[in-house]
Amino acid sequence: MELWFSEEQTPTVNLSIKVREHILTRKSKFQQIDVFDSYEFGRFFTLDGMIMLTEKDEFMYHEMITHVAMATNPAIRKVLIIGGGDGGTARELTRYKTIERIDLVDIDEEVVNVCREYIKFTSRGLDDIRVNTHFQDGLKFVRGKENEYDLIIVDSTDPFGPGEGLFTREFYGNCFKALNQNGILVNQHESPYYDVYALPMQTAHKHIKELFDICMVYQAHIPIYPSGHWLFGFASKKLHPLRDFDAHAWNSLGLETFYYNTDIHAGSFALPNYAKTKLEQC
Amino acid sequence: MELWFSEEQTPTVNLSIKVREHILTRKSKFQQIDVFDSYEFGRFFTLDGMIMLTEKDEFMYHEMITHVAMATNPAIRKVLIIGGGDGGTARELTRYKTIERIDLVDIDEEVVNVCREYIKFTSRGLDDIRVNTHFQDGLKFVRGKENEYDLIIVDSTDPFGPGEGLFTREFYGNCFKALNQNGILVNQHESPYYDVYALPMQTAHKHIKELFDICMVYQAHIPIYPSGHWLFGFASKKLHPLRDFDAHAWNSLGLETFYYNTDIHAGSFALPNYAKTKLEQC
Repeated sequence: MELWFSEEQTPTVNLSIKVREHILTRKSKFQQIDVFDSYEFGRFFTLDGMIMLTEKDEFMYHEMITHVAMATNPAIRKVLIIGGGDGGTARELTRYKTIERIDLVDIDEEVVNVCREYIKFTSRGLDDIRVNTHFQDGLKFVRGKENEYDLIIVDSTDPFGPGEGLFTREFYGNCFKALNQNGILVNQHESPYYDVYALPMQTAHKHIKELFDICMVYQAHIPIYPSGHWLFGFASKKLHPLRDFDAHAWNSLGLETFYYNTDIHAGSFALPNYAKTKLEQC
Repeated sequence: MELWFSEEQTPTVNLSIKVREHILTRKSKFQQIDVFDSYEFGRFFTLDGMIMLTEKDEFMYHEMITHVAMATNPAIRKVLIIGGGDGGTARELTRYKTIERIDLVDIDEEVVNVCREYIKFTSRGLDDIRVNTHFQDGLKFVRGKENEYDLIIVDSTDPFGPGEGLFTREFYGNCFKALNQNGILVNQHESPYYDVYALPMQTAHKHIKELFDICMVYQAHIPIYPSGHWLFGFASKKLHPLRDFDAHAWNSLGLETFYYNTDIHAGSFALPNYAKTKLEQC
């Protein structure tokens, strides 16, 4: 018997992965959660049929959503993660001794439960004593917060299900208020290539640039996501990811990384013209 | 009726594309050639079932295989393309008025015939009077040439069929001899992500760095190729792609590009650690 998982990347493009085993299927209050073991990517999990992470390439996403901001401002102490219930972003942050507190807000407790049991290579990030997990709507959690965080990371799903509110102007406005004067907002920013992802990319960018003085976009190669070309937003009130970034300081921390390095930090902000055009058009 | 084309990217990973029409299937002396029209990618063609280019994203590959070298040495006059029968690389090169002669050597005349009829958006590059097309084995063509070219572009297929000889030490050694003292060799360099591509990537790099003083690798996001993370080799006897590159000079040419720009030129040489490790291991 052969078992293949297929993800609909667009209505006319599918990626199919031969799986060893369909380990778990569970319906939470918010979404369908499935866990698989595969030959090429090792363990992976999906929400509503979309791959969230795989054992083979989660490091690319989690390193790039974390270290660019941390290398720009080594004084970051207090961080808010919206989403990120798999724990991978928390895991990368907890490698910095200087971080004092991480609030992680995921709407779906079942995602955390499943990851704690089946996706331990990321969920171990949640075990650090500095990580405080909150199960509620990130949109509501951040509302009313003022001047509290050095860094907010929006580690959301695509804006087609429970993650939809995390792409609204109201949400980014509340993030702006929740950040202090050196505050940085990093968000997973979808992809420029397929229209179905490029449209929310444009919406997010439009809202964020209306709010923040510094609003930039950087990219990474993440093969498992549709097109393999994934973007992250870097928005900030004051700090610039290239001008305020000290490569030497970050390298002296001695953190071992498998994707991120200080050359990539700078290089990742160089986007192809077609992606720049789509961002400028919004 | 629904018609789907599937490419086996690895033995356990498939990319499937819904097609409007299977326009042509033809067996040449060397390989199976097919042309399709698709919803997402427009017109595309395959050799032995592997996608060579699509209407939607061929600009990424052809711009990146061409402009990095041209921006490093604006004095390039004489170019050899090995492979590239679709004409896309020739099309990009012919945009430079300073180029005097392009020899294009493709082993398979049928590829050129099919592209001239069905893939006009790239094959129009072959119509320029400076392009001289030769139908023979690139390995043989370059053997015996000495000090003739400013630039050689190896625009080959993967090394699993007729392209195999283009990944050998002998071939790169002949390229070295065929280049003049300012000569640059650019080659499509496979991908670091899936083992089936990372192994020839390592072999190519090993051979090239034994020959050339300057041997670097740069990357691009090309969604249609396996993993979407594609590499190019930049090898040279003297000129350095970052130190000898004059962004202002290239920008003053006023060429409109959809992927390449002078920021990407520099940024594309910043590779992720895992890819650097694989290149260093070989």
